[in-house]
Order: sequence, then C-alpha cells, then structure tokens
Amino acid sequence: MSESSGCAIAAMPGVPRELKVMMEQEIKPRILKMMPPGEHKILLSRVLRLVGIGESAMEQLIMPLIENQSNPTIAPYAGNYEVRLRLTASEHEESAAIQLLNNLEQQVRDILGSYIYGVDDESLETVIINELLRKGQTLAVAESCTGGLISHRLTNVPGASAAFMQGAVTYDNSAKIARLGVPEQIIAEHGAVSAETATAMAMGVAKTSGCDYGLASTGIAGPGGGSSAKPVGLVYVAVYGQGRTAVNERRYASSRISNKEAFAQTALAALWQFLR
Amino acid sequence: MSESSGCAIAAMPGVPRELKVMMEQEIKPRILKMMPPGEHKILLSRVLRLVGIGESAMEQLIMPLIENQSNPTIAPYAGNYEVRLRLTASEHEESAAIQLLNNLEQQVRDILGSYIYGVDDESLETVIINELLRKGQTLAVAESCTGGLISHRLTNVPGASAAFMQGAVTYDNSAKIARLGVPEQIIAEHGAVSAETATAMAMGVAKTSGCDYGLASTGIAGPGGGSSAKPVGLVYVAVYGQGRTAVNERRYASSRISNKEAFAQTALAALWQFLR
Repeated sequence: MSESSGCAIAAMPGVPRELKVMMEQEIKPRILKMMPPGEHKILLSRVLRLVGIGESAMEQLIMPLIENQSNPTIAPYAGNYEVRLRLTASEHEESAAIQLLNNLEQQVRDILGSYIYGVDDESLETVIINELLRKGQTLAVAESCTGGLISHRLTNVPGASAAFMQGAVTYDNSAKIARLGVPEQIIAEHGAVSAETATAMAMGVAKTSGCDYGLASTGIAGPGGGSSAKPVGLVYVAVYGQGRTAVNERRYASSRISNKEAFAQTALAALWQFLR
Repeated sequence: MSESSGCAIAAMPGVPRELKVMMEQEIKPRILKMMPPGEHKILLSRVLRLVGIGESAMEQLIMPLIENQSNPTIAPYAGNYEVRLRLTASEHEESAAIQLLNNLEQQVRDILGSYIYGVDDESLETVIINELLRKGQTLAVAESCTGGLISHRLTNVPGASAAFMQGAVTYDNSAKIARLGVPEQIIAEHGAVSAETATAMAMGVAKTSGCDYGLASTGIAGPGGGSSAKPVGLVYVAVYGQGRTAVNERRYASSRISNKEAFAQTALAALWQFLR
C-alpha cells in the first residue's frame, strides 16, 4: 500500500480468509490514518433480530420511527425465517454514535421488545442456551421432520452440554412410541403430524430424560408424504416445561432442506418465547 | 441481448437466483447459436468424489495418469473433508466427450475404486441412503459430539424415512446409558470419548431400535473439554451391523463447528466403507 501521492492502492490475495484479516488489521487502520483528523465521521451499525413477527407487521408498528429517521437511520430486512432492523449512526466520536444507537434501540424495544431475541451476531440457539445456563435448567429435544437440525444448532453453541442433555430423532412412528412414550392411540387418532403428537413428543422427551424442558417438531418436509389435508410444508412445534405446554402450527412452501430450516427456526423461536 | 453487430451485450439482474436461470435458459443458447457450427468445442467435466484417502496419497497413486494427461485433463482437489478429481474433456460432439470421460473414469476406478463414493453432486448421505434402500435395510444413529449433524445430513435425502429410522443425540452420559444401554462400566473405565464407548453406542442404538446398522460418534468438539490425553478435535466413530463392528480414531484441529463437520463426514465415510 503506497501512500505518498495521496492516492493509495492496496493489493491483496484473493483467498477470503487471508483478505479479510488483512483488511481489518492492515488496510483499515492505514486508511483511517490517511484521513485528516476531525473531518471524517464514523458509521456504526447495530442489528436487532426478531422472531414471531413478519416484516410488514414490524414495519407498521414502528412506522413513526421509520418516517422520522435521520441519524441514526433505521432499515428493516427479512432474513432466514426472521426479520431484522439495522440501526446506523454517523458521528465524529464512537461514543456519541453508541449513545445515539442506545437511544433508538430503546425506542424500538418499547414497541417491539417482545419479538427481539438478539443483537448483531447472536443466534437463537446462543440466546436459548445462555438463558438455560443462567437459570441452571436443562433441555431435551424430540425431532421428527427436522431430522436432527434443532439438536445440531443447539450443540453448535460452546458450553451447550451443561444445558442440552439429549435429543431424539424419532423419524419412525415406533421410535416416537418406544423412545418418548407417545401413546399409540394419539398417533392413530390424530396422525404423526398433529398438534397432539407434537405435544406428546415434547412432554415425552422431557419426562423420559428428566429435563426441565422438552421441545418437539413434527411435520412434512417433502417432497413426498404430503396430502391435501396435511400438505408438504406443514409443521407442528411444541414446548413443554414447568407444567405448561405450548403448540404452534405453521405452513411453509419450499424445498425439503429449506423446509427443515424453516421448521427448526420455528421450533427454536417457540422455545425462546416460552422461556421468556 | 443485441446480436446484430456481432458484439453481444447481455444485461441481467443482480439477484443470483434470477441471474442463473437467465444464464442457463436465455444467454447460453443464444451464445451457442451465434457461433459458427463445427468451429467450437464442448468442454465437459465430471467430478469423482473420494473419502478414506488424502490428496497427496491419491495423487501418488494416479501419478502416471496425471503426468500423461492431455484430453481429458485430470485435476485433483481437496474438498470438505474429502478429495475430488475433476476430469475434463474437450470435443466437437458431446457423445465423444462422454466417451473420453468414461474411458478415463474407468482407468481411475481401476486404481482408486475403493475410495470413490460418488460422482458430481452425489453426497455421502445420498449414496448411503440409496444403498440402504436398495438392500431394504435400516439404520439408527447415536451421536455425542456431532450433536445431531449426522442425522440432519441423512434426513436431507428425500425418501430417507424408509431407511433412517431414528437418531439419538446422547450428549449427556446418562443418556448414553439409559437410551442406548451403554454399560456404565465402559464409560467409567475408558471414558465417554473412547473406542469402547463408540462401539457400545453403535451396538446399543442398533439393538434398542431393531435396526440393521448402528452408527455412532463420540469426541471433543471444543473449545472446552479437552485434555493432553484427549485433546479437542479427537473423535471415535463406530459402525455396527451384521454381527460386525468397526471403529476409527481421527484427530482434527479446528473450531467447534468445523470439528463437528469433520466428525460427521468421518462417521458417514466409515459407514459407507462398512456398507460396501
């Protein structure tokens, strides 16, 4: 990087892993040093992550904040089965930008607080595991249609083993009965994909594992197995804990793998709301 | 796309999903039509995917093929915990290119056949599920360190439910004992991360589920939980079936999530080799 002429050229390798480190550690500090002090402003962003609400419903609720935005700006996004709000402040001093972001975040939380699960890079699974660790409580998961993805996401969090005790991927109906104690009659009467079976799975996995909470999913990921009454993309997620149960029905319409991702996100969102 | 002047300019939207379809369905056929017949050659590639062998060992075994390559060319790659060989033929006619690729693939298979699990986009999980479906056999999975990822990958395959019966994510030791019937003494004597526990998990999940095969993983994904004797990145994978068992020890050194990915790939590779 040559800086003598006032025009700097930085040449970097194409490997993303190498390039990103160089950009952060070498290029950015030099660019900042090249700029006259006091003349440049800092742009600082913060992302609020929400579940349980759609993008348009979210926008309507904070329309006054969106319409009157100047600094910070506020921008809604639709992410992977969640919605996001990006707040961006521009100030000469970092501390002033942070103060602006804090103020706007508080205004957003006054309206949307019950949907905001995390900030910036926080994932649903991280927030859930940390909440369970804080409370000293334990979780077991029973999955049908998500096929292990919920357990996989939860165990991606370092230290998960002190809160996540076990998961059961009960794909086959006989596994739901033998592993979780789901009454055969419930499956016969309501079907494996039903609110009743999801609830029995959540209760069953909590009780057979001795955990405080049970989380369960049952649905039809596709491409086969759907019917007009129970189409591909239909999912039931249930949570059990502290003597309470909650069950949600959702419908998605995507590929097998995208449906699994949507189902897992729906289940984790339901658990997060249950834990609050 | 204007073609009158002999210089064609194609303008496309930036959304990858839209752009790719347009490229395939609109742009490519027009480019081909613009070229004088008989003057252009077709480039056809085929990727062979291997597990159970490293990139340099693979290269050494097929060094004569690599050194004498002309048409088709042959290029080795290291992928996600597997290695790949890309064969590329150039001919005027597609059928002639296919014939060249078939001939070279056969020469490679004569040397490396026992490591080649798939071609082009075939994944290990697809090959495994299809092999089980073909044989009419069933599989159950017991996961510790992989936390559900093996079951997730297997259930990504459409139709998996006729071969993959259930998975047990036995993170906690008590779950390994209660769910899989792993003898408490084995864990006490050898530790939860050991060849003995992995083997007991594979046998246990096959027997308690009534499945033909059992696949198990136990290891230390990190960042915590390691010791000098059993460091982060250590994994044991075991397969049980048809009265036989096989167990492998591997060591990786990466982040928690990358270790989980390496462990899951190791387990699926072991199962594929066992099924052959």
